[in-house]
Amino acid sequence: LDTNLKKVVLVVAYDGANYCGFQFQPDAASIQGELEKALFRLTGENTRVAGASRTDSGVHARYQVVSFRTSSDLEPDVYVRALNHFLPQDIAVKAAYKVNRDFNVQRQAVSRMYEYCILNSSVRDPLRRLYAFQVHGQLAVEAMNQAARLLVGEHDMASFVTDFSQSVIKSTVRQVFAAQVEQREDLIVFNIHAKSFLPHQVRNTVGTLVRVGMNKIDIKEFETILEAKRPGLAGPTVPAWGLFLMQVNYPRPLGEYYDEDL
Amino acid sequence: LDTNLKKVVLVVAYDGANYCGFQFQPDAASIQGELEKALFRLTGENTRVAGASRTDSGVHARYQVVSFRTSSDLEPDVYVRALNHFLPQDIAVKAAYKVNRDFNVQRQAVSRMYEYCILNSSVRDPLRRLYAFQVHGQLAVEAMNQAARLLVGEHDMASFVTDFSQSVIKSTVRQVFAAQVEQREDLIVFNIHAKSFLPHQVRNTVGTLVRVGMNKIDIKEFETILEAKRPGLAGPTVPAWGLFLMQVNYPRPLGEYYDEDL
Repeated sequence: LDTNLKKVVLVVAYDGANYCGFQFQPDAASIQGELEKALFRLTGENTRVAGASRTDSGVHARYQVVSFRTSSDLEPDVYVRALNHFLPQDIAVKAAYKVNRDFNVQRQAVSRMYEYCILNSSVRDPLRRLYAFQVHGQLAVEAMNQAARLLVGEHDMASFVTDFSQSVIKSTVRQVFAAQVEQREDLIVFNIHAKSFLPHQVRNTVGTLVRVGMNKIDIKEFETILEAKRPGLAGPTVPAWGLFLMQVNYPRPLGEYYDEDL
Repeated sequence: LDTNLKKVVLVVAYDGANYCGFQFQPDAASIQGELEKALFRLTGENTRVAGASRTDSGVHARYQVVSFRTSSDLEPDVYVRALNHFLPQDIAVKAAYKVNRDFNVQRQAVSRMYEYCILNSSVRDPLRRLYAFQVHGQLAVEAMNQAARLLVGEHDMASFVTDFSQSVIKSTVRQVFAAQVEQREDLIVFNIHAKSFLPHQVRNTVGTLVRVGMNKIDIKEFETILEAKRPGLAGPTVPAWGLFLMQVNYPRPLGEYYDEDL
């Protein structure tokens, strides 16, 4: 272990449209890959970037948290300016912090917040076409909100997973702190705040909520799906472009995980 | 004059990024050109589309009003659905109305509303990069708002025109009903409501207001620029991608300009 290695945390935002997701893939552009390329150009080091939440292909982030190790002594604000210079326009570093080497962006995160935007209109909106999923028929927002609130608490979310076959998930129990559906002008917005999420959980949840909003299933049937704990029951999976990672929360502000003595 | 020709008005919205502007140009994609192509595919007629406000290259519209003549007997809601089918995803028809043949979308409009979005942040926002102009240093919003309010009333706006040489403008006097600058989260938004506008007027106005916000000029100097009535004094011209045509107003709702007997 190189004792000269420091750990740095970045808050990043991105438009996910042109990426295969957060996670590195050899033949496709990824958020992780772009961050690692920019870090190489800045520090000359090949470093691995870890993310707090692995967003899927096409999913956006307003506030994602990543970390990396480096032997460079650059100040946090230099990372912000220099990385934004090297990164493509659809990825930005919003802030940087020195942290202790034992700080883990994924394990120490206490919760994540996601938002999903539905354009509920019979006519498309050219200015939102890349950031909201269009549903034509009028949705019953209050019924969707009532169904969403059933998710709050500790639940086995197995029904909201598409497929377990390739997964290494130990438990499908997840703790949800808040979930709601609200109308904002012509958008219907779903917000969910949870300790962590299963793959495709948010998009399968929204797909099921849309079925509630269309009166294809009632709230009781939504509850039955939740309680069945059976993969594939929920959905359909709504498109990635309506989904935003809004926040990753830690017990303390990110600036308070650095101790000069360590 | 073909007495069988009817007139139809459309409310359209578009993302201006991929267009040379509203007005037809032979070698570039325009909003007018795309609407005319879609109408040809729907009705088989070569018809000319007139717009209430000629947006420049890159400028967006949430509510633009256009009209065309046709001999077809399609109902308004058929135009909405069929044209949205033929149009590219970054242009949409929001509504259609039959109007009397003497209705003129440009002459009968009593006012237009434009909005300009500034991202006031040292860090870019990947999710707004196509819809807001970034200004790094912190802007004095209240000073900008006070300067904006000087525009209200009837003024000779000659200073806010870039160049008269190629222009056929008879008068540079314009009537402004309202103008304001306000902070909305990390955006600074300029709204202006006027009877009509000169070419580049809004973008040159915003460029001048940004100079006020940066304390490069004070409110008194802004007033001096306005009162000088000299082309080229204002500016710089801020980029097109922050500008949105928000509304075109008529004395009556667009659905009330059709008389069965005419």
